[in-house]
Amino acid sequence: MKHNFGAGPGILPHEVLKQAAQAVVDFNGMGLSLLEISHRAPEFEAVLDEAVKLVKELLEVPEGYSVLFLQGGASTQFAMLPYNLLPADGKAAYVESGVWANKALKEAKFFGEVEVIATSKDSNFTYIPKDYTIPADAAYLHLTSNNTIYGTQLHEFPKSPIPMACDMSSDIFSRKINVADFGLIYAGAQKNMGPAGTTLVIVKDEILGKVDRKIPSMFNYKVHAENGSMYNTPPVFAIYVSMLTLRWVKSKGGVAALAQENKAKSRALYTEIDRNPLFKPVCAVEDRSDMNVCFVMENPELEKAFLKLCDDKDIVGIKGHRSVGGFRASIYNALPITSVHTLIDAMQEFQEKNK
Amino acid sequence: MKHNFGAGPGILPHEVLKQAAQAVVDFNGMGLSLLEISHRAPEFEAVLDEAVKLVKELLEVPEGYSVLFLQGGASTQFAMLPYNLLPADGKAAYVESGVWANKALKEAKFFGEVEVIATSKDSNFTYIPKDYTIPADAAYLHLTSNNTIYGTQLHEFPKSPIPMACDMSSDIFSRKINVADFGLIYAGAQKNMGPAGTTLVIVKDEILGKVDRKIPSMFNYKVHAENGSMYNTPPVFAIYVSMLTLRWVKSKGGVAALAQENKAKSRALYTEIDRNPLFKPVCAVEDRSDMNVCFVMENPELEKAFLKLCDDKDIVGIKGHRSVGGFRASIYNALPITSVHTLIDAMQEFQEKNK
Ligand SMILES: Cc1ncc(COP(=O)(O)O)c(C=O)c1O
Ligand SMILES: Cc1ncc(COP(=O)(O)O)c(C=O)c1O
Ligand SMILES: [Mg+2]
Ligand SMILES: [Mg+2]
Ligand SMILES: [Mg+2]
Ligand SMILES: [Mg+2]
Repeated sequence: MKHNFGAGPGILPHEVLKQAAQAVVDFNGMGLSLLEISHRAPEFEAVLDEAVKLVKELLEVPEGYSVLFLQGGASTQFAMLPYNLLPADGKAAYVESGVWANKALKEAKFFGEVEVIATSKDSNFTYIPKDYTIPADAAYLHLTSNNTIYGTQLHEFPKSPIPMACDMSSDIFSRKINVADFGLIYAGAQKNMGPAGTTLVIVKDEILGKVDRKIPSMFNYKVHAENGSMYNTPPVFAIYVSMLTLRWVKSKGGVAALAQENKAKSRALYTEIDRNPLFKPVCAVEDRSDMNVCFVMENPELEKAFLKLCDDKDIVGIKGHRSVGGFRASIYNALPITSVHTLIDAMQEFQEKNK
Repeated sequence: MKHNFGAGPGILPHEVLKQAAQAVVDFNGMGLSLLEISHRAPEFEAVLDEAVKLVKELLEVPEGYSVLFLQGGASTQFAMLPYNLLPADGKAAYVESGVWANKALKEAKFFGEVEVIATSKDSNFTYIPKDYTIPADAAYLHLTSNNTIYGTQLHEFPKSPIPMACDMSSDIFSRKINVADFGLIYAGAQKNMGPAGTTLVIVKDEILGKVDRKIPSMFNYKVHAENGSMYNTPPVFAIYVSMLTLRWVKSKGGVAALAQENKAKSRALYTEIDRNPLFKPVCAVEDRSDMNVCFVMENPELEKAFLKLCDDKDIVGIKGHRSVGGFRASIYNALPITSVHTLIDAMQEFQEKNK
């Protein structure tokens, strides 16, 4: 078994993969593959219904929100969000906490004015900007809850006088959130929810339909909400595997229970990074992510040798993003704590070897 | 084994499904699922490269075209096409040969003027309009090569003085086409190419970048072309299964060989529909589709009983679309001729029983 620390598409639970493989040859004993049945078949409609129900249950989504499974990844949401919510003569407020936040705000500029109310770009995004005033006249505030590349996480969301929109691609379902605080939440599935190919959107219905701009059907949240994510052929398999993963989340005790496990995993790893003289952390302590743990070496020349040791121990996917360097251990929901211990053991072994 | 005549997501080759299932548990002996590896892993880049190569090879795509695997289905192309190619002060010409063509032209109206140069709406799309003049001042001509719902197919493409854009969602890879005649071809994968979740686009590079409008990255063909369909996380699994299906197409002798088989299948079925006094065809003889064979009963009261007989014989997915009624047998590439014979046998048995 590999210890999969990849940043995304990331690790999925073993039992989910087994069931998904079975569905590819024979779905629900239908004598047909899940890949070759109509998306209008009751068997798939039940899958989509259950996926939506699980999202609502696990995140305690209040009334008045639509839960959508779309295509195009989080990057499509960078554009759909302002397409639907930013009036041509209005403005939107963005907190620039990483490259993804930067890409999101660049796409918003196609639709209206963008005010970057805070940025940590100068420090290569090693912390989350917290000192800002949210302009009450902006259409929405855009945040990134977890900065996958830099390993920072927003542990406390601001109180906002305007609708908050949040990219939760890399920490959705990893902890409790209060959906009522948000106007819109989006997340590409491929970190904590399922395989690449579908994107979760949770949107407060009342914020939709307020811009004058005409919106083509596929880019229009209202169209998808009114059609229950079935305006056109949905990404059947990606939704099915997401549904299975959400079932697994529920079986684990839900997001609160997983959050505890995630804390235990991240704490163990950060403790070792801090303790071990060969390694050092990258980010501000108070903003450390429970999902992506970034660290570098005091002596960068040892990086290769450490990667080699990891490889020998079936630890995969821990090379850091090129814009940070060093290492990034992504410890998503499905990663067992035993894998974290294996990594910690490797770090200690490496310390011994390099005394 | 079921005889899967579903209109889409449609039947895929058995061996493709088996390999796909294997990749879901362990991809290429990596000890990891295809669903949990980075899309930047060399193992997946090889898949995408091979998929693109197979498209080029099978359709003999000339130089100067980009082959893209996108998300969002054909319905997203309805909007992306005019977003990229229809100037705000220009017009586009559409042939309305069915409901999908109608949806395509409606989306184009968000971006510029649309001239419907021909329609067969009055006859409920039972034929393909052929008598029209293509306006030389339009930005492009939009066609639908196969009208999935009505069972008509464009057997000869017009000569066009302007770039032709064509929705080939339901007959791509079923026959030879001359790509050089087209400016852009698109197709949702879920009929002849793979599972739902990816869309093939083949676009002539030189027609891009000519509208003034600013186009958000994810809706911009140029961005996807420049990034080799990896601008963001692609739909990994859907692309992989499409690649496997294209390998299968090649192993069958390519599109010319499949076209022969498809002709044999459709001819056998239309012959029976014509011969059998209980059944009658729906469409103009010269426009009959080799992919979707629509037929009704002389006595509609017998429909239920025939569906029941089909069900007994494991013939599935032949109920017609509600806007046509009767039956629709979709006989995509992966459907073996033996399934067509099973259906014909059922029709003959039904005739015997209802003498
Ligand atoms: C926080 C965040 N936002 C957005 C994206 C882009 O997602 P996608 O590739 O689905 O467009 C990523 C991808 O890693 C991410 O981590
Ligand atoms: C010819 C044609 N075009 C477009 C579509 C819509 O495709 P999608 O559901 O991928 O948006 C279909 C779906 O059946 C189709 O048959
Ligand atoms: Mg980031
Ligand atoms: Mg240290
Ligand atoms: Mg049609
Ligand atoms: Mg007849």
